[in-house]
Amino acid sequence: MKTGKILLVGAGPGDPDLLTVRALRCLENADVVLYDRLIGEEIIDLIPVGVTRIPVGKASGYHSVSQDETNHLLVRLARSGRSVVRLKGGDPLVFGRGGEEALYLRENGIAFEIVPGITAAVACSAYAGIPLTHRGMSRGFRVVTGHLREDGKLDLDWRALTDPECTLVIYMGLANIEEISRSLISAGVSPQMPAAVVQNGTTTDQIRVIGTIESLPRLAHANEITPPALIIVGHTVSLAHKLEWYFPEENQDDTSKLVWAGC
Amino acid sequence: MKTGKILLVGAGPGDPDLLTVRALRCLENADVVLYDRLIGEEIIDLIPVGVTRIPVGKASGYHSVSQDETNHLLVRLARSGRSVVRLKGGDPLVFGRGGEEALYLRENGIAFEIVPGITAAVACSAYAGIPLTHRGMSRGFRVVTGHLREDGKLDLDWRALTDPECTLVIYMGLANIEEISRSLISAGVSPQMPAAVVQNGTTTDQIRVIGTIESLPRLAHANEITPPALIIVGHTVSLAHKLEWYFPEENQDDTSKLVWAGC
Repeated sequence: MKTGKILLVGAGPGDPDLLTVRALRCLENADVVLYDRLIGEEIIDLIPVGVTRIPVGKASGYHSVSQDETNHLLVRLARSGRSVVRLKGGDPLVFGRGGEEALYLRENGIAFEIVPGITAAVACSAYAGIPLTHRGMSRGFRVVTGHLREDGKLDLDWRALTDPECTLVIYMGLANIEEISRSLISAGVSPQMPAAVVQNGTTTDQIRVIGTIESLPRLAHANEITPPALIIVGHTVSLAHKLEWYFPEENQDDTSKLVWAGC
Repeated sequence: MKTGKILLVGAGPGDPDLLTVRALRCLENADVVLYDRLIGEEIIDLIPVGVTRIPVGKASGYHSVSQDETNHLLVRLARSGRSVVRLKGGDPLVFGRGGEEALYLRENGIAFEIVPGITAAVACSAYAGIPLTHRGMSRGFRVVTGHLREDGKLDLDWRALTDPECTLVIYMGLANIEEISRSLISAGVSPQMPAAVVQNGTTTDQIRVIGTIESLPRLAHANEITPPALIIVGHTVSLAHKLEWYFPEENQDDTSKLVWAGC
C-alpha cells in the first residue's frame, strides 16, 4: 500500500471566501480532514459529504486531543494510504504549530505539503478598514502573541514593540489587554496611540472597537468583546472610520452575501 | 447610470493556486481589471477573455502609469458604471498603496471593497520550508521594506530589528543586501544568525539560498539572485533543509502541477 501525503492547509481568518483556491481543492480531494475545533462551521461545511472529519485540539467542554495524539494520528492515517488534510485556522506556520507537525512527519518518513492561508493580522485589519502599512504612517508591521507563558507571565520585550511607525498586531491578547495597554504605555508608546480590537474578524459576526491604547481595555470591556479577538496598535488605526467598507450587519439574513460582496 | 464599485484585490505571492476563492470570483465578474505590471502571467491568464486589461505601475522599458493617473482612472471607470478590479501583488494593504487608493476613492464618493491576499512574508517562507513562528525559536515576526528613501538612505531602526526570537522578513531588500547584513550585525545580530533569500517565491521559478546573515550577500551574489526576492532572518531559517517540501524543478515541463501538488 502506498503511504499517503499530509497536506497542512491554512483555512484563513474565518470568511470562507478567503480560502485559497488550492485549500478548497485540497478539501474536495481529501479522504480525511483533521481540523482545529476553532475553525468556523461555514468552512467545515465546505468539506464534502463522505469525507471523514476529525476535530482535534482544544475546545471548552470537549476532551482535548493533545498535540502528541494529533501527531500520531497523522502518521497512522498517512501509513494507511489515506489523503489527509490537516486544516488549521489562519496560516499553518503562524502560531499554528504547523512547523512542529511537519518536523514530526519528516522524522517519520511521511511526505507533506504546506498550503499557506491568510493570517488574521492581514485579513482582520483589512476588514476593519485598517491598513497594516501606509505611507507617512507605518512602514511595516510586527506580529506577536499576547497569551501567557507556562509560568503565568506575559513574555514580551515591550521596549521592542514601541516603534511608532510599525503597526503592532497582537494575537490572543484579549485576556491580558489591561497589562498589554499598561506595559506599552510604560515602555514609551503614547497613551493617545490609536488602537483597535477586532472580534470574529472577517465573519458576519465581526465587531470592531476603535480607541486609543489607553482607552482600549475599557472599551473592550464595555462592548463585551470576547475571543477570538485581535488587537491592532498604530497610527493607521486612525484611518478605520474613513476606510470602513465591511458592514457585516447587512449580512445577517444572509443568502445575499455574495451579491453584497460585489463579486 | 449607476456608479460602479472598485474591488481592491490581492493577487497573492505568485502561485495562481494561492489566489483566494473570492479574488478568483472577482476576476471572473469584472468588466475591467487594472493590474500591477509585476503580477505574473499565470495570474493574468485567469482574467476571462473579453475583460478589459489595463497594466499600471512601473516596469522597466514601459511608460510608467503614475499613482495619480491610476487614481483618476479608477474614479473615471467607476463613474462609467463599470465593475472594476484593481489587482495588486500580495495583499493590497501590505506595501501595496491600497490604503492610499481607498482613501482617494472615499474622498471621491466611490464605493470600494478590499479582498485580502496572501502576503509574500507568509507564503514565500512556507514554500521555502521556513516557519515564521516556531516554539522555542520564534515567537512572532516583523515585516519591513529594504528599499531606499528619497534621499537614497535606508531608513530602518536597526536596533529594533535585532530580537533573536522574532523572525525578520525584508521585502525589496536585495539591492541593499550588503548594507542590511552589515547594519544588522552592527546592531547586535549574531553574524551566525541563519538567513535566507527567496527569489520568485511560490512560483515554478523559485530559488532559495540559505546561509547566515553574514554570508547571505556573498551567496546571493554567487547564485545570481535577482528581484523579486525576499530576505528572511531568524533561527527558524535553520529548519529550511529539514522542512523542504517544494521542489519546483519537478514542475518545469509541467502540465502535471496540480497532480504533483497533491490536491
